[in-house]
Amino acid sequence: MASFGPSNPLRGSRVTRSWKLVESGFRNASNTRRFSATANNCKPSNVGGVGLAAKDASIGEQAPEPLTIQGIKARRAKAGKLVAGTAAYSDSDMFKSPHAYQNPKARRWDHLLSAESRARKPCVLKQAAKHLKKPGLVSLGGGLPSADHFPFDSMSLRIPVPPHFSEEATHREGKITTIGKRDVVEKDSVFDLSIGLNYGQSIGSAQVLRWVTEHTELCHRPPYADWRCALTIGSTGSLEAAYRMFCDRARGDSILTEEYSFSTALETAEPLGIKVFGIKMDEQGLLPESMDDILRTWDESERGAKKPTVLYTVPSGQNPTGATQGERRRKDIYDVCRKHDVFILEDEPYYFLQMQPYAGQDSPDVPPPANVEEFLNGLIPSLLSIDVDGRVMRHDSFSKVVVPGSRMGWVTASEQVIERYIRHAECCSQGPSGFSQLAMYKLLDEEWGHEGYLQWMMDLRLQYTKRRDAILHACEKFLPAEVVSWTPPAAGMFLWLKVDESRHPEVGSKSLMDIEEEIFDSCIDKGVLACRGSWFRAEHDKPLPSLFFRTTFASASEEQMAVAIERFGSAIRESFKLD
Amino acid sequence: MASFGPSNPLRGSRVTRSWKLVESGFRNASNTRRFSATANNCKPSNVGGVGLAAKDASIGEQAPEPLTIQGIKARRAKAGKLVAGTAAYSDSDMFKSPHAYQNPKARRWDHLLSAESRARKPCVLKQAAKHLKKPGLVSLGGGLPSADHFPFDSMSLRIPVPPHFSEEATHREGKITTIGKRDVVEKDSVFDLSIGLNYGQSIGSAQVLRWVTEHTELCHRPPYADWRCALTIGSTGSLEAAYRMFCDRARGDSILTEEYSFSTALETAEPLGIKVFGIKMDEQGLLPESMDDILRTWDESERGAKKPTVLYTVPSGQNPTGATQGERRRKDIYDVCRKHDVFILEDEPYYFLQMQPYAGQDSPDVPPPANVEEFLNGLIPSLLSIDVDGRVMRHDSFSKVVVPGSRMGWVTASEQVIERYIRHAECCSQGPSGFSQLAMYKLLDEEWGHEGYLQWMMDLRLQYTKRRDAILHACEKFLPAEVVSWTPPAAGMFLWLKVDESRHPEVGSKSLMDIEEEIFDSCIDKGVLACRGSWFRAEHDKPLPSLFFRTTFASASEEQMAVAIERFGSAIRESFKLD
Repeated sequence: MASFGPSNPLRGSRVTRSWKLVESGFRNASNTRRFSATANNCKPSNVGGVGLAAKDASIGEQAPEPLTIQGIKARRAKAGKLVAGTAAYSDSDMFKSPHAYQNPKARRWDHLLSAESRARKPCVLKQAAKHLKKPGLVSLGGGLPSADHFPFDSMSLRIPVPPHFSEEATHREGKITTIGKRDVVEKDSVFDLSIGLNYGQSIGSAQVLRWVTEHTELCHRPPYADWRCALTIGSTGSLEAAYRMFCDRARGDSILTEEYSFSTALETAEPLGIKVFGIKMDEQGLLPESMDDILRTWDESERGAKKPTVLYTVPSGQNPTGATQGERRRKDIYDVCRKHDVFILEDEPYYFLQMQPYAGQDSPDVPPPANVEEFLNGLIPSLLSIDVDGRVMRHDSFSKVVVPGSRMGWVTASEQVIERYIRHAECCSQGPSGFSQLAMYKLLDEEWGHEGYLQWMMDLRLQYTKRRDAILHACEKFLPAEVVSWTPPAAGMFLWLKVDESRHPEVGSKSLMDIEEEIFDSCIDKGVLACRGSWFRAEHDKPLPSLFFRTTFASASEEQMAVAIERFGSAIRESFKLD
Repeated sequence: MASFGPSNPLRGSRVTRSWKLVESGFRNASNTRRFSATANNCKPSNVGGVGLAAKDASIGEQAPEPLTIQGIKARRAKAGKLVAGTAAYSDSDMFKSPHAYQNPKARRWDHLLSAESRARKPCVLKQAAKHLKKPGLVSLGGGLPSADHFPFDSMSLRIPVPPHFSEEATHREGKITTIGKRDVVEKDSVFDLSIGLNYGQSIGSAQVLRWVTEHTELCHRPPYADWRCALTIGSTGSLEAAYRMFCDRARGDSILTEEYSFSTALETAEPLGIKVFGIKMDEQGLLPESMDDILRTWDESERGAKKPTVLYTVPSGQNPTGATQGERRRKDIYDVCRKHDVFILEDEPYYFLQMQPYAGQDSPDVPPPANVEEFLNGLIPSLLSIDVDGRVMRHDSFSKVVVPGSRMGWVTASEQVIERYIRHAECCSQGPSGFSQLAMYKLLDEEWGHEGYLQWMMDLRLQYTKRRDAILHACEKFLPAEVVSWTPPAAGMFLWLKVDESRHPEVGSKSLMDIEEEIFDSCIDKGVLACRGSWFRAEHDKPLPSLFFRTTFASASEEQMAVAIERFGSAIRESFKLD
C-alpha cells in the first residue's frame, strides 16, 4: 500500500465499488487543490508565493478565492493587530475567510443531543462579561486574580528554526523565543503571561484559536458556512465530551466503530452505558457495506440497544490496525452516515503522519513532496472536508505531531455543536493550560507560522517513514511469512500483525484467547512487549475471531525494533512449532 | 470578624452551641501545631530549623514525629534521587512519612459510588506498562512518540527569589530557572522536557505528585492511613468528576450545599440531573443545625429526590458570601456528615488566603505572623485534617494563589476514592499539561521548596488583606449604612453586600427579583459590575428571599474599587430613594 504523491492509490482513487451512493443530493465537495502562485493578489511571501486554489469546478464556482497562506497574511495585515485581553471572548467566525460563508449552513442536531447536553446553559458569570465592553466600567464581578500577583515574569523556549528541525540543530542553534508578563502593553505584542496565565474562555484564547481556525480552513476547507473550532484539553477529553453530548444512557444510545478500535475510546464509552458495535474492516479500514448492512438490518431487541446514531472512526493510520481510508472510501462512509443519519466523530491524531509509500527493502525511495503545496495536495481529504451537512466533529491533536504533554488539541464542527461543546467545557475543563497555549502560540504563530508548521510535518512524516521502514525490514527478516502477515501502514505509528491461527497446532482444542495469551506471555519472557489484538475489540463479549498483535514504530530505536521483532518471531515460531 | 493570630476567633473557638455532636466515637483529631526546632533529628536548614510538631496529646500518642519541612528534607536525602522516567507510575504512598500510617484506614464508599464510577476498569494499555519493569524488555506497546521529535529543547522561567516576591523585584532581579530536554541524563536532574512533555500517568508526574503529597501532609496531616493525592486539571474538572463518581441520575441522587453557592458548581450539577438543596448560612457559612434538620426530616416524595449523600462546601472565603467556617463549625459540620453518612467535597481554592483580622479604618494593623510556623499555626484546620473516616475529597487549586492558567490542582482522599478518580481521569483528561507540571515543578520544588511556597502565601495574603481593607474602607465611606451591611471577609476574595429590602419603597408591590435587576441595571449604567445574589442561589426555583450583591477585591486597583463602590452606593440610594 502506497501513501503519497501523484500516484497515491488512496488519494483520488478510481475504485468502483458495487455498493452505491445511496443518498441523492450529495454534493461533490472534493478538496482537490493545486498550487497557484496567482490565486490571490498578494505579493509572494519570503517563502515563495505559497498558494492553494481549488481546481475542482464545483468549488471554483462557489469560491473564487479559497484561503491560502498568502491570503492569511494579507487578511491579518488588513485586520490589524489582534486585541484580545484577559478572558476575551472570541470565536472562529472572527478568523475565517469570506470564502467560508459561501456555502449553506450546517444541519441541526437537536434530535441527537443527549438530555445532559440539551440541559446545559451558559455560565451566568461568563454571560455577565458582556457588560465589560462598556467604556469606563469597573468590574467587581468575576473573581479573576490580578496578574500583579503571578510569580512568572517571563517564559523562554528554545525551538527549531525551519527547516533545521533536528534535535541536534535545535540544541546547537535553535532560536530562543521569550514571552514576558506585560508584552502586550510594553512590547506591542499580541499575547503575554498576564493574559495567558489568567483565567480564559473555555474555547481557548483568541490568539491560539485564530491560528487553529486558519490552519483548519487551509487544510480542510469545511464545505458549509457555520463551522467553528474550539481548543480542547486533547482528544481524550473532547471525545469523552462528544460521547456525553450525543449519547444518552437512558435513551439506550449506541455507537459504531471499527471492529478493532482504540482501546481508550472503548473504555471511555463503556462506563457511560453506551453500547459499542464493531464494523468489519479491510486494509483501508471500516467497510461502508458492512456499516450499511448493520444499520439496515438493525433489530433493537436482538441488539439490546437503539440503532447507532454515532460513528467513531480514526480515518488515517487507525489505532490499532494502522489502516488508512482512501478518498473514495471516506466518501462512501460519509454517504452511509447520511443515509442513516449518523453523526461522525473523526479522530485524526495521525492525519499529518501520512508517510511515503513503502517501496520495499531493495527498491529506491520514492521522492518526497518538494514543497508545502505538494505536501498538502497529496494528503487524503478529511471527512471534515467532504462534510456538507456539518455532521462531522473532527478531533485534532498536537500529541502525536508536537508534544503529548501540551494536553491541547482542537475540535471542528458546526456552530451548534461547538456551542454545546463549549457549554460542556465550561463545567469540565475550562480549556487547555495557559502554559501550553503560550508555548504553542509562540511556536506555531509567532515563530513558525503556517508554512513552518507544515514544513515541520513534512520533516516529521519522513522520520516516521524511516521508522516504519525499519520495522518492516525487521518483519521481513525475522517473521515466518507462512504465519504472520501485514499491510505496510500508510500513516500513523502502528503495524498490525495478523497471525494465521489456522496453522496453530492446537487450533480447535485451545481457544484463540488462550493462544493469544500464550504468545503474549512468551513475548514478555523473551523481552518484547506487543499489544494483544483482543484488547482492541469493539465487542468484548463475543469470542475472539482471529489473532492479531499491535506493534508500534513510534518510540524504539531501529536497533531495538530489530531485536524486538526477532524476539516476537521466536515466540511465534515456538507457539506454532515451526522450527 | 477577625481571621488570624492567636486571638483568631475562627481558630480554636470556644463557642458552645445548643446543637450537640450527635455521633459518638468522634476522635478529636485537632491539627494544632507548634514550632519545634527539635522535633526531629535533622540539622537546621539554611532557612533556620523550621519544624512542626503536634502539641495535641491525642496526635502525640499516635505520632511521635509528624512531618516537618526538615523532615521532608531528611526523608528525601535518605530516599536518594527520585528516578521516574516517561509515564512512570507513582502514588502518594511513595512520598508519605511513616507518621501517616499509624492511623486506621479509611471507610469504604462502595455504597455511594455511581454506576458509572463502579463500571470503570483500568486502561488496558496502562496496565500493560507493568511489564516494562522487566530488564532488557523492548516495548512495541504504547504509542508514545519519541522525545527525539519534540520541538522544544529547553524552557526557562523568570521567577521570584523568596522573600522578594513583588512584580518589580522579580522583573529586575528574579532568577531564571531552566529545564532542558535531557536534563535527567545529562545533568543528573529529576525532571526534564523529554519526560514532562511526553504522555504521563493521569495521576500526574511523580515529580509533582511528590511535592503535592508532602505539602498536603505538612499542612493537613489527614488522620487516616490510606490517604492519597492525584493531580487534577483544576477544581472545575475534579469537581465534575466527583459529581459523576458520587451522584447517579438514575438513582435520583442529590447534594447539599450552602444556600448561596459557587455558580459554576451549581451549573455543573444541573445538567447531570443532580438536584441541589441549600443549607441556611450565617457569617461562618453553612449552619450544621440546618443541615441536620434537612437530613433528619427528609421526605423523598416531597423533595423529589433521594436524601442527599454528598455535601459540596467551600469552607474558607466561601464563594459568593466570603464566609469562613471556624474550627468548631467545621467539626460540627463533619459530625452531621458522619451522622447521616454524607460524603464531603471540600473545595478550598482560598484556604491560604486567610487574611489578617480587619481592624477598621483608624485602628492600627494587627501584626502578621513572623514566620512560616506561626503562619501554619494560625490557619483554621481543614475538613481533611479532621477527617478520621476518609469521607472528604479535598480539592486544592493553584488558580487563586499561583496562576489560574496552570489548569492544575490536586485532590486528596482515600485510596479507594483516588483510585476511582484516576480511572475517571484516564478517560477524560489524562492529567494536567506537561508544560504546567514542568513550570510548577521548577517553581515549587526545585526553586522555592515548601518553605518558599509558604512564604509566598504569607506575602500573598497580605496583598489580599490590603485589597480587602481598601474595598471595606470604600464601603464605609460610600454605602448607606441604613440599607447595606456586610461582614469583613476573613478569607478569599469576595465581599458579600446585604441590601435590606424591607426599606425599599416598592417592597411588596415589586418582586425582589425585579428590584435586584433594577439595581444591577442601574449599576451597569453608572459603570460598575457587581454580581447579583440570585445568580448564586442553590435552589433556583424558589422565590428570592433577600437582596445580596457579590463584589470582589481580587482584580481592580484601590482607586478603581473606590470609584466602583461609590457608583454602587449611588445606584442603591437611587433605588431606595434615600437622598
